[in-house]
Amino acid sequence: MVKKLGKTVILENKPTIIGYGSIVGKKEHEGPLSNEFDTYIDDSYFGEESYEKAESKLQTTAVEIALKKSNLKPEDIDKIFAGDLLNQCIGSSFGLRDFQIPFIGLYGACSTMALSTALASIFVDCGAADKAIAVTSSHFCSAERQYRFPLNYGNQRTPTAQWTVTGSGALVIGKGKNMPYINAVTFGAIQDLGITDANNMGAAMAPAAASTISQFFKDTKTSPEDYDIIYTGDLGRVGTELLYELMDKEGYDLRCRHADCGNIIFSVDNQDVHAGGSGCGCSASVLASFVMHRFEENQFKNILFVSTGALLSPTSSLQGETIPGIAHLLNIKK
Amino acid sequence: MVKKLGKTVILENKPTIIGYGSIVGKKEHEGPLSNEFDTYIDDSYFGEESYEKAESKLQTTAVEIALKKSNLKPEDIDKIFAGDLLNQCIGSSFGLRDFQIPFIGLYGACSTMALSTALASIFVDCGAADKAIAVTSSHFCSAERQYRFPLNYGNQRTPTAQWTVTGSGALVIGKGKNMPYINAVTFGAIQDLGITDANNMGAAMAPAAASTISQFFKDTKTSPEDYDIIYTGDLGRVGTELLYELMDKEGYDLRCRHADCGNIIFSVDNQDVHAGGSGCGCSASVLASFVMHRFEENQFKNILFVSTGALLSPTSSLQGETIPGIAHLLNIKK
Repeated sequence: MVKKLGKTVILENKPTIIGYGSIVGKKEHEGPLSNEFDTYIDDSYFGEESYEKAESKLQTTAVEIALKKSNLKPEDIDKIFAGDLLNQCIGSSFGLRDFQIPFIGLYGACSTMALSTALASIFVDCGAADKAIAVTSSHFCSAERQYRFPLNYGNQRTPTAQWTVTGSGALVIGKGKNMPYINAVTFGAIQDLGITDANNMGAAMAPAAASTISQFFKDTKTSPEDYDIIYTGDLGRVGTELLYELMDKEGYDLRCRHADCGNIIFSVDNQDVHAGGSGCGCSASVLASFVMHRFEENQFKNILFVSTGALLSPTSSLQGETIPGIAHLLNIKK
Repeated sequence: MVKKLGKTVILENKPTIIGYGSIVGKKEHEGPLSNEFDTYIDDSYFGEESYEKAESKLQTTAVEIALKKSNLKPEDIDKIFAGDLLNQCIGSSFGLRDFQIPFIGLYGACSTMALSTALASIFVDCGAADKAIAVTSSHFCSAERQYRFPLNYGNQRTPTAQWTVTGSGALVIGKGKNMPYINAVTFGAIQDLGITDANNMGAAMAPAAASTISQFFKDTKTSPEDYDIIYTGDLGRVGTELLYELMDKEGYDLRCRHADCGNIIFSVDNQDVHAGGSGCGCSASVLASFVMHRFEENQFKNILFVSTGALLSPTSSLQGETIPGIAHLLNIKK
């Protein structure tokens, strides 16, 4: 049974994460979570002719791994929920084309992993699907040339800039026992506090994270202490500090219960990533590896996982628009 | 109750279309459906500084009209499902930002109206939302410069090219009586028969439409004769002929029960639109006006509405990729 509780949706049938797969790039593999990922690529092109095709192949691979681990075939899956950062989401449409699974395309920027998982979980809970997959990706090289400059230009990065993760993560949602399940989801509304610096995405996304997390606390009458940990997607160092300040104003101290996927996927001090990791693939690959492993080892029993997205485009920035942010939340339990 | 029937999802709680709104451009207003739309704009800029901002305002306006007609305020709406053709879907994120409704961003290209309505209906049916909005838009000028050439270039169009509709349509889904409701939905899988001509979208999308429609017929053991009419989104003249041929092979003759929104929104012979209308706003504005009016007048009791999308990007075409298509289906009854 699906039940509304304020703006939060409670999933009483326990849609379960029955499989997961992750793949990352070389830099991510050299980072602190190195051994957590299922596999990695040494070659940014992944044997393809373009970065965009490489990104598609990341999604294909993550889904293949997740299917294999859950001992399923594409025809066992009722729906696939996917999106990415590329214009017209071609990472997903080309990467998932051959599976022939009914496809629900999403655009949530870097919030896509929580968005896709939330939708897949609701579908499984209410019976619209027996099994569904949630997947997303990003690729440093395809993102740089689309959002910023061609790599060959060698532009200098600002201190608040984040490094787009090359990677993909996929979850299979179904029914299972003794595995982590999605207990509740909160879809966020678009928040915009007027940030215009496209090199400071963390600041643009922090208000959205604060809004969704406090909404969830209010709806469920819980507080940070009730959770083992609260992950945000890719606020990085700058966005994380802002999130703490904004949550203080709401009366919640997140500091001792929070980590940001963008801060843990890289060694922020040693890997030249400035303010931390970002991209749809950041929270996706961390969720579908490190976070799942902690559940397997019973270190986690009850967490919040909040992916955050900046809903801008290069065109909107050139036209002087501010950067709208969004955050979607998953409450994962075991 | 939501129930799986093959790949089709049956919605037993009758999520109802309790409000709708439409807005189109000047050319659409001069077409055969002129009097059906709620309002239209004479100025392509809609008083804004760019076509993209004008497109955002189309979505804002369609939602405002739909809310007004259903006597609701933004705070009465639990979720809004939206997407558009612009890179990073900025038509939706900027157009819907101020409503402060939890936002689920979609990318389904021109299939977005059926996709958003299907998701909104499932949410209302299963209790994840009491009321939800589905909305999408397109704008001839923003689409031309993003996908093809700047308008000032005055490029020549091929005979198979379609004309992107300037318009937006919004539906409010809730619970109501004596109003059209969504009885079933079928989400399509990505289909790709190897079409590479980006000026022939109808051909690229027809296989997806054929696949989803025949899937629905098989799942529900029905045939074209069981429906008052079957609308496709924007196959245009070329795609429509191909759809008929593909459906013949599946054993279904659609000819006497089919119309395409892209063929009826313009006078294809007199308005210089070549193969017909296209764009997310095409099926959206036709559904949220003409189709709803036919239900109100009890001319329709049971129809299929199938929006079709071409999941390409200018980048994928330049990289020599084929054009994947997708189609999602709504069975609307009264």
